[in-house]
Amino acid sequence: VLQYLDAAMTLTASILEGDRLALARLLTHIENDTLEGRTALNDLFRFTGQAHLIGVTGAPGTGKSTLVNQLALYFRNPAANRKPARVGIVAVDPSSPFTGGAILGDRVRMRDLAGDPGVFIRSMASRGSLGGLASSTAGLVQALDAAGFELILIETVGAGQAEVDIARLAHTTIVVEAPGLGDEIQAIKAGILEIADILVVNKADRSGIENTVRALQAMLQPAYRSSSKVNQTKLGHHQDVQINKTPQGEDELWQPPILRTVATDGIGVQELGAAIASHRQYLKQTGDWIIRENARLKSELDTLLQATLVYRWRQRVSMQQYQYILEGLSKRTISPHQAVELLLDGNPS
Amino acid sequence: VLQYLDAAMTLTASILEGDRLALARLLTHIENDTLEGRTALNDLFRFTGQAHLIGVTGAPGTGKSTLVNQLALYFRNPAANRKPARVGIVAVDPSSPFTGGAILGDRVRMRDLAGDPGVFIRSMASRGSLGGLASSTAGLVQALDAAGFELILIETVGAGQAEVDIARLAHTTIVVEAPGLGDEIQAIKAGILEIADILVVNKADRSGIENTVRALQAMLQPAYRSSSKVNQTKLGHHQDVQINKTPQGEDELWQPPILRTVATDGIGVQELGAAIASHRQYLKQTGDWIIRENARLKSELDTLLQATLVYRWRQRVSMQQYQYILEGLSKRTISPHQAVELLLDGNPS
Repeated sequence: VLQYLDAAMTLTASILEGDRLALARLLTHIENDTLEGRTALNDLFRFTGQAHLIGVTGAPGTGKSTLVNQLALYFRNPAANRKPARVGIVAVDPSSPFTGGAILGDRVRMRDLAGDPGVFIRSMASRGSLGGLASSTAGLVQALDAAGFELILIETVGAGQAEVDIARLAHTTIVVEAPGLGDEIQAIKAGILEIADILVVNKADRSGIENTVRALQAMLQPAYRSSSKVNQTKLGHHQDVQINKTPQGEDELWQPPILRTVATDGIGVQELGAAIASHRQYLKQTGDWIIRENARLKSELDTLLQATLVYRWRQRVSMQQYQYILEGLSKRTISPHQAVELLLDGNPS
Repeated sequence: VLQYLDAAMTLTASILEGDRLALARLLTHIENDTLEGRTALNDLFRFTGQAHLIGVTGAPGTGKSTLVNQLALYFRNPAANRKPARVGIVAVDPSSPFTGGAILGDRVRMRDLAGDPGVFIRSMASRGSLGGLASSTAGLVQALDAAGFELILIETVGAGQAEVDIARLAHTTIVVEAPGLGDEIQAIKAGILEIADILVVNKADRSGIENTVRALQAMLQPAYRSSSKVNQTKLGHHQDVQINKTPQGEDELWQPPILRTVATDGIGVQELGAAIASHRQYLKQTGDWIIRENARLKSELDTLLQATLVYRWRQRVSMQQYQYILEGLSKRTISPHQAVELLLDGNPS
């Protein structure tokens, strides 16, 4: 009888009941952007908004994955002042579509976290879904959120704009640096320092650590960040969206701490965990939590809108017409702008 | 009288006549995506397709800018076997929208190349135009191409997908590495090795150079690349676009050379210049030149299409409706997918 009931239960219900297999299945549906995945996400959406989303970003080689691993272990272990939280991990590393590096990351982590029902790890292996990486990630995070994971660590290679945008839309963004990776240049050029709520210099047992910390300190100007995080929007003319902006005095602003860790040995992880909790409290008190929630939802909406518009156009246009116009481009009888007008309107302006 | 004639000349005509001021004005128009910019690009497009587009990409701190600078100097100086070429440089560094790092790059270069009418340098300061970075870059490159610059160096921070995509669509892609920047990890994770036509290990006077070269050699498998470069397309279902694929024997495939440079001293720049010329010859002989041309044009078309679809939708939708739906998202009464359906169709499915 149980078997039959089981079969009849929707994917959604299974996930709300904590069925890990159903969750894994849903995440695959979301990555593949199937109708089943969408339907489930529609159903599950009202159960989201509970999790603390933590973006962890940094250049390759800074030891992000190990740090994320250690953070998960930390949050799983109870302490005097807190109970264990359920932890979801979404690793976004689309850098190599050829070698599929994301798989390796999973295996490394499995050693420490395998078998713990309070941890769920997912690496994004593909980046091909409708709306791309950002949409897929948003969907995975929503599913984990609805499934009751209270902390969701989103790990991205903080090198490209797409990855930075993903990290930026977390409640708490951790930027990981390491000594001897180009130091100042690395942080400035990557342009990710501005989005950091917490800065971590990992591999703190290496030489050059003081230089790295000093460089970061020098670049941290007071109040450099404020609410710039939410000013970045996708569809330009909606920038005046009403968000619950809380008036803040200078002294109330969050100053990103610079923490030192040796993730491989778990050193500094406790302090990082405390900083994350403290940032959460700050967000809740100032109202920034809601501001960031809304900014994220708006960004998700805009990304999905864009993808859907392209998808629908694709359904309408004929392959022959597209080919014909492409040939015109190739012969340079029409320009790209004229080609777009031809494809959308049937005639160039 | 000349003044009057001048005023009557269109921007297009001025540019074809070699007017640098007009070119600078047009590039600004393109970056801002004005109607004037579009009209000029439409007119100029038939004069494009002459330039050799050279993408130069690599992690921050590898010395890309200096190398690009030196390459420009090299191509400007005549030698026994070649005449000086007119060189355009487009520096794409959108990493920091806050600090505007691109401006600095210009000043550094000015010292060496200022006053040479055969060189035109443009840093992309903004990334806000319709279609974003890729569209703007494509437009700038087209303008320089039409203006008669025979070699166009496109410098990107080879860290994010967007930047890699830009470099990938050049005729010749140069990936720059440097010793001690994380070596193997850096190259693999950045995922840019696969797109390299020429590999450069810059800062070759530093310790660790042999390790870096060895790591790169190990990762270079024969024929790993072939035509994978053009298989990546934006609008999924058009992947079967006809391109003039030339049948190639194993022995005809381009093997990316690994070159060593010390860009600050100009060491190895001549060899790099020769490798670029040799790659050009290879592309022309095998027909890959046309394949890459067409792949680039298709990518430009797709990017522009996407941007235009979003732009047109934006013109249609009312701000009130958008706000209302955003609030529904915020209250979690509708999901992102349902919000998209409401915005596009007026009702969710």
